[in-house]
Formats: sequence, C-alpha cells, structure tokens
Amino acid sequence: MTTEKLISEIKKKQSFLCIGLDVDLTKIPQHLLNNEDPIFAFNKAIIDATHDLCVAYKPNTAFYEAYGLKGWKSLEKTITYLNEKYPEIFTIADAKRGDIGNTSSMYAKAFFEDLAFDSVTVAPYMGKDSVEPFLAFKNKHTILLALTSNQGAFDFQTKTIDGKEVYKQVLETSKTWKNAENLMYVVGATKAEYLGEIRNIIPDSFLLVPGVGAQGGNLQEVCKYGMNASVGLLINSSRGIIYASKNEDFAEASAQKAALLQKDMAIELNNYFKN
Amino acid sequence: MTTEKLISEIKKKQSFLCIGLDVDLTKIPQHLLNNEDPIFAFNKAIIDATHDLCVAYKPNTAFYEAYGLKGWKSLEKTITYLNEKYPEIFTIADAKRGDIGNTSSMYAKAFFEDLAFDSVTVAPYMGKDSVEPFLAFKNKHTILLALTSNQGAFDFQTKTIDGKEVYKQVLETSKTWKNAENLMYVVGATKAEYLGEIRNIIPDSFLLVPGVGAQGGNLQEVCKYGMNASVGLLINSSRGIIYASKNEDFAEASAQKAALLQKDMAIELNNYFKN
Repeated sequence: MTTEKLISEIKKKQSFLCIGLDVDLTKIPQHLLNNEDPIFAFNKAIIDATHDLCVAYKPNTAFYEAYGLKGWKSLEKTITYLNEKYPEIFTIADAKRGDIGNTSSMYAKAFFEDLAFDSVTVAPYMGKDSVEPFLAFKNKHTILLALTSNQGAFDFQTKTIDGKEVYKQVLETSKTWKNAENLMYVVGATKAEYLGEIRNIIPDSFLLVPGVGAQGGNLQEVCKYGMNASVGLLINSSRGIIYASKNEDFAEASAQKAALLQKDMAIELNNYFKN
Repeated sequence: MTTEKLISEIKKKQSFLCIGLDVDLTKIPQHLLNNEDPIFAFNKAIIDATHDLCVAYKPNTAFYEAYGLKGWKSLEKTITYLNEKYPEIFTIADAKRGDIGNTSSMYAKAFFEDLAFDSVTVAPYMGKDSVEPFLAFKNKHTILLALTSNQGAFDFQTKTIDGKEVYKQVLETSKTWKNAENLMYVVGATKAEYLGEIRNIIPDSFLLVPGVGAQGGNLQEVCKYGMNASVGLLINSSRGIIYASKNEDFAEASAQKAALLQKDMAIELNNYFKN
C-alpha cells in the first residue's frame, strides 16, 4: 500500500487506529476454543466488528509462533482474510526481525511476498545492511524500532552516544539508508514528551505508537507532539480493545472500545486540520 | 542441556563446531527438490554426515519462514529429528527475537518448549525486560547479540556511550540481569582483536562466533583471544560446510569440510589444555 492511500483512508475513516491482534488462547472467550481454529475465529470476529473504526491491524508474530505450526497457519489465514476482504486496511507484521543482509532478505520475502503484509517491524541493532533488504521492496514499509514503550528502553535506547541518545542516532543514521522513504518508526506513547524532539529529526515519517491505554500513554499528548501535515501517526491498541469482554458479545465490546478511540481521534484530526 | 554437558561433548568430540542450517532451495542439490520436504531431506543428510564432527546445529529461522507453513514444518521436523536421534547435540534457534516482556515470554515458549531448542539468539535493543523472560528457563540458553559479524555492526554497536562502546554496555548491563548465568553472546569472528576486551568483561561466558570462513574470520585468532578454561567458544560455519557440493555427494563433501575445521579445533584444544 502507498503512504498516500494510507493517509486517504485515515481521513476517510477519521481514524488512525491500529488494532493489535495479540491473541492469547487463555484470554479469549472460552466458547471459541471449540472452534477448529480458535485464533482465526477470534481475529475474524474482531476484524469484522472493527474494520470501519481502524485503518490498520498488527498481529504480533510471537503470539502465533507460540502455537507452532497451528499458530503460523492462523497467522496466514488472518492476513489472507484481511487482504481479500478488506484490502483498504494497512497490515503490520509486528515481528521485530533483523539479521545480516542475505538473511534479512529471507525475512523480507517471508513477510512482504509470501504473507503479503504491507509492513514489518525491524530491530536496528545490526545496522544498515540488516535493514536495507527490507527497504528494497516498493510500496512496502519497514517500521524501525526507535524508542520502545517498555521499561527496558532506558537500558540502551536513551543512553547517549557523543551527546546524543542512541534512539536519535538510529533515527538520524537510518535517514541516510537506501530507500529511506520506506521507513516508519516505532515510538512508545509512554514518552510523549520525546515526540517533539523526534519530529525535529524525522518531520515527515509515519510513527507507529504503541502504549496508549494499557501502558499508560495519552492520546492528546501524542497528537500534540507527533501529528504532522500527513497525520503521520498510527496509534496501536491491543489488549484494551480485543479483550474488552470474555463473553459471546466480545466482538461488539471490542468495537465499542475502538469507537471510543476513533471518536477521540476524529477530534484530534479536526483540531489539527481545521484551517 | 546444561553447560557442563556441552563442555563435556566438546572435549569428547574435540570440536566446538556449530553448523548453520541456513537452507536456501536455490543452493541445495537439485535432485532433492523431488523430495516431499526438500529442506528436511537436505538437513537430515547433512546432520547424519556431520553429527560426530560438531557439537551444535543452528538453523536460522529466516530461511524457514521464507517458505511459509512448509518452511515452519521443515524446521519442526529438523529440531525433532535432532532431539530424538542426536540428543547430545546442542541446538540453537537463530531467531534474533526480542519484544516487550509478555511477548518475549511467548517467543521463549515457542523456541524452548514447543520446538524444544536448547538455546535461542536474542537482540538486546529493547533491554532487560525483553531478555529476562528467556533467561527464566532452566538449562536453556539465551544467546544475546553483542558484536555481530556484518558491516552494519559499526553503525551502532561500536559507537561509544560515555566512553564505552554500545556492545560493551550490552555485555556489562546484561550481567546484572536475573538468571544472567543462562546468557551466551554472539561475537563476530571478523573482529577477533575485540575478543580480548570482551573476555575482560565476560571471562566465563560461552561465545557463539559466526563469520569464520565465508565472512573472513580466522580460527586461530578467535581461539587465541576467546578461549577460556571451559573452552567458551562455539564457532559457526554455515555456507562453507553445507554448500560444499551441489552433487549427489553433497553430504560427504560437507563432512569433509567439517572434518577440516574439527581437526584445526582439536589442535587448538590440545594447545590450550595441554598442561
């Protein structure tokens, strides 16, 4: 998907919500466990109920790999369902991959070609030649970890190299890589005050922002510091939406939670683009 | 597997060779493509021919994910074959995973429990709470990326934080994490001269050393700077061994290449432990 198409979907739906499909079989409604593929059944119901309130879905691959072959099959069914039924949706494989060049090419092939995701999250630790193989795919997006939303972000990401934090070095260095226009960045919402400085380095890029809701981030703060003329934000919520209820009404309950966020996002969009 | 068992296998086989099972269908003998599962057929032949010359096998997950469900199945068959037929072999899932705490737990479950690997490689960028869920597994080993063997290692890993390189910060910080005794580290052989300084920080840990052979590293140099009283080294070779021949004799050819390395390793072990 092109960035222009993503922006137009955001404006049409008045939403920049991304829903994280992190399916844990111990947390989904127990009546679904009778289903042949409970993970896909859960995802399908959530997607059907929420697709007009969000612009993106983000399965985290860990939750699928944890169930082995079956889990991988559920992931495949989920992305195929999205691509066939809702091609206007931006899809993110939250895989946090990264390896030496020829190996990263294999990962890029796995997520961009075989599974046909629009984007994949990638870790920066191994540098340029571990990321560029992902960037080589046209109209596919590589979402680089910059400043994550967990406590461990303070172990290395916020330490300073020559007076500049590691995550800022990652932002600046990555701008020089080939096909850098295909980069987006993960920036945790729990550190909204960092967003202003981040926007000085990458004014135009899309940011994938986890941590609104469950992890304590604040939507208004994120928009204040992070929104740009192309919107430039995808805000992710996982548990807060998909586990809204453990009863038969779980899909409707998730849609209600998503609608609350969508409504707030519409207000932010109207504030920003009113002139 | 316990570290003691790994050390005793190294001494018995006079080898600290790890063979990387990075299977690319365009590079394996073409007669195998008629097989129902060419990847597993290739791995099985390589394993049967080389298992007495090495102590570890390391499938890189990218090469399996690139073939989707089929690839994942080949990975499952490979690790099951290793665990059943050659339980004395140390197995490494070269997955370079890492995510926020509860998500890393899912990855740990996938590789340590479902697939029953002895170890998994993990990226350090997200810090303590992204690694500790892996460390919580008893007699399982978490192999943390420190200094990788690719060019991109110089983008961030060798930059200095407060006068100390990022990879050294990773080594020092990781020593303070819970169950740090379950850590091993990836250190590229292309930078053997760094190994002396690395040993000052982590004198006792095992190092997984890629980059001997294809990537230009030198076995004698690595042993000179990296070997310790528990051997402390696993040296990986992938393409140099598994793609030794594209003909029907490919497995024997790979064994010959492995035997050359094993012989050199026996010399190094004898030199180090002669007194």
